[in-house]
Parts: sequence; structure tokens; C-alpha cells
Amino acid sequence: MTFYTHPESRSRVVDIMLAELGIDCERVQLEYGTSMKAPEYLAINPFGKVPALVDGEVVIYELAAICAYLADKYADKGLAPALNDPKRGLYYRWLFMVAGPWSMATTDQVLGATPSKEQEGFVGYGNYETALHALISGLSEANPYLCGEQFTAADVFVGSHLMYMLSFQRLEPHPVILRYTDNLKQRPSFQAAFAPNS
Amino acid sequence: MTFYTHPESRSRVVDIMLAELGIDCERVQLEYGTSMKAPEYLAINPFGKVPALVDGEVVIYELAAICAYLADKYADKGLAPALNDPKRGLYYRWLFMVAGPWSMATTDQVLGATPSKEQEGFVGYGNYETALHALISGLSEANPYLCGEQFTAADVFVGSHLMYMLSFQRLEPHPVILRYTDNLKQRPSFQAAFAPNS
Ligand SMILES: N[C@@H](CCC(=O)N[C@@H](CS)C(=O)NCC(=O)O)C(=O)O
Ligand SMILES: N[C@@H](CCC(=O)N[C@@H](CS)C(=O)NCC(=O)O)C(=O)O
Repeated sequence: MTFYTHPESRSRVVDIMLAELGIDCERVQLEYGTSMKAPEYLAINPFGKVPALVDGEVVIYELAAICAYLADKYADKGLAPALNDPKRGLYYRWLFMVAGPWSMATTDQVLGATPSKEQEGFVGYGNYETALHALISGLSEANPYLCGEQFTAADVFVGSHLMYMLSFQRLEPHPVILRYTDNLKQRPSFQAAFAPNS
Repeated sequence: MTFYTHPESRSRVVDIMLAELGIDCERVQLEYGTSMKAPEYLAINPFGKVPALVDGEVVIYELAAICAYLADKYADKGLAPALNDPKRGLYYRWLFMVAGPWSMATTDQVLGATPSKEQEGFVGYGNYETALHALISGLSEANPYLCGEQFTAADVFVGSHLMYMLSFQRLEPHPVILRYTDNLKQRPSFQAAFAPNS
């Protein structure tokens, strides 16, 4: 596997996955605006963004996809609920909720776009307040992790996303959020990825 | 399992999954603006939207999560690549690309929000043109399905999403898109879900 990355980017989340799995892989560091937008890399990831992971013939981009893929490829490490465990539904719900509506709601907040009442019906997140409420009510059941006792790739993806947002002051430090992220900060993999100047 | 649905909604995509799996489950039809926003349902899905699926104690919302969960729960039906197949990475890439950046790009188009050049660096989809290009260049390799010969839950989710957008004239009928959706329209499950007045 080859991992296309940049140390100052959400690629660091893939490092958390690799650390939790106890594996490593070849790394190619790309630079913003130059090698990330070069034709050779656009042929791999047409978004010209990091991270991307190439496994044999297959190109995987989208951070959440990379996390879910690695958890499945190394299923014996237990970073995803078993296929026939209903918790697997909760796992996907979190991955897709944060990759979809939650990211959309927070992006639109930055862009200054607010759906009208009518648009809320077909906009995936409805409105920002609803998305925030869904996040917090879901997290209030995370004990200590999203799927209960089992730490999963959904915690890697969702937890690091929340930590980034908190650190950029794009999210109010609600006690339910902090309780969850504080649990994650106990893990060496998160400490390494979020350590200053590492 | 209990499936919360409305016939005129993207819940129809769950019907495609159920048909492809050859299974059925209890259905609860909710109404827009009333039972969808009632406290009992908001306790299940805080977004007050359909679809949602309840399996035992676990609540699953987000259409893509429901599709991925059902494919895994009935893994013997072959609607997802095996855990250790690199194609599983391609499968997740498609699910997350369409649930994430693609949905975000098309939603922002409707909302009239356009990221500035600087914002493109952290907005998941960059800009609309890049997302459309990524969609089309990815689909040009779908032969006949996203993961090759194997029809998967990613085709159910992505294919139906594209068909909805085409039918609402929110997507140009690019030949590469039509070639892909025409393949899917051969399947009885898609015919039933997209049949007029059904
Ligand atoms: N939806 C993508 C977004 C990736 C992304 O936006 N990466 C940023 C770094 S955190 C990037 O590469 N930006 C460079 C650019 O857009 O030129 C994902 O989840 O992987
Ligand atoms: N992100 C959600 C979006 C679901 C959604 O927006 N559903 C619409 C019907 S297609 C809905 O229930 N709208 C009713 C409302 O928002 O009041 C998903 O993918 O499941």
C-alpha cells in the first residue's frame, strides 16, 4: 500500500488508524498547490487532495473510506463490529453522519449558506441546529466509545474530526463532546497524531 | 427490523436493497411535517427524516449507512466485496464520495454557495467542477458496475442518487453517467422503485 499524505492535514487521521492497527506502509508526502495538483497525482485522486491510499490496483480517497477499508482489511484487529452485529449499523451511521450531513452543515456555516425552511426538507442535514443536536444526543450515548466498549474506526474518524473542529474554534466545547474526546485522548495513537510539532 | 419510510422519498432506495437481498421487514410510513417531526420519531432519528432502520436496539439513519449495513448483515448475498478484497476500498470510496463531497457540492449549488479559492483547500469537494469531474472520471471505469462485475450496495446508493438528480434536472445527462444508469435500469429492483405511480 502507498499512502499519499501531508503532515499538516487530515491525513494524520490515517496515521492514527495505522498506529491502532500496528502496521505501516509506504508514504509519499505531497505539497499543497504543487504536487497535489500535478497531473500524476490528479490521475490518482481527481480532487487533488490528501489523503489517498493505493492498494494494488485500487485507489481509495475520502478519509472515512480509508478508515473503514483499513478496519475491514485487518478485521482481526477488531476496529469494526462484526458483519452480523447490529452495532455495525451504528458504526456506519456515525461514519456517514459525520462524513455527510455533519460535514455539510459545518461547511455551509463557514460558507455562510443557510437552507430556507423549504430547502431543509431535502438538504441532508436539515439545519445546523438539528445537526448539532443529533451529534450531541448521539454522543451522550457513547460510553466510552461510539459503539460502546469496542473502540472502532468510527471513533478514529469522528473523534479526530471533532478534535480538529474544537482546536479551530469551529465547535462549542459542549461537555458531552469533551467527555467523548477526553476518552480518546487517553490513547497513544491520538496523542501522537495531535502532539504539537510532531 | 423496522423500516421508517415514505413512498415519495429516498427511502425507496432501501426498497431496492431489500429487493436485491430478497428480504422484507416491517414498515412504518411517516408523513412529512407531522409524524416525521413527532417526539416519538425524533427520539429515533433526531433529524426527523426518512429513511431510518431499527434493528433490535440499534437505530440506523443515513441512507448510505442503511445500504452498507444491510449488505454486510446479509453478506452471503454478495452485495459488498469481501473484507480482504481491495475492491472493498473502491466500494467505500464510492459510498463516501457520493454521501460526502458529491452531495455537499450539489447541495451548495442549490443553496448558491460557492467556496472561495482559499476555502477550496479545506472544503471537502474543492469546487463543483472538480467534484463533477471526479464523478465522471470514476464512472468511466465502472464496467458495468462501480466495483466491476460485482453489483454492490454502492451501485444501489450511487446509482439511485444519480437517477434522482437526472430526473430533477439537477445533473447534465453526460453519456458516461447515462451508460452507467442505463445498466442499472435493467435490474427489476430499480425498475420497481423508479416505476411511475408505484
Ligand atoms: N473529502 C476529503 C477532503 C480532503 C481534504 O480536503 N484535504 C485537504 C487537507 S486536510 C487538502 O488536501 N487540501 C488541499 C487542496 O484542496 O488543494 C476527505 O475526507 O478525504
Ligand atoms: N442525509 C439523509 C437525508 C434524508 C432526507 O433528507 N430525507 C428526506 C426525504 S428524501 C426527508 O425525510 N425530508 C423530510 C424533512 O426534512 O422534514 C440520508 O441520506 O438519509
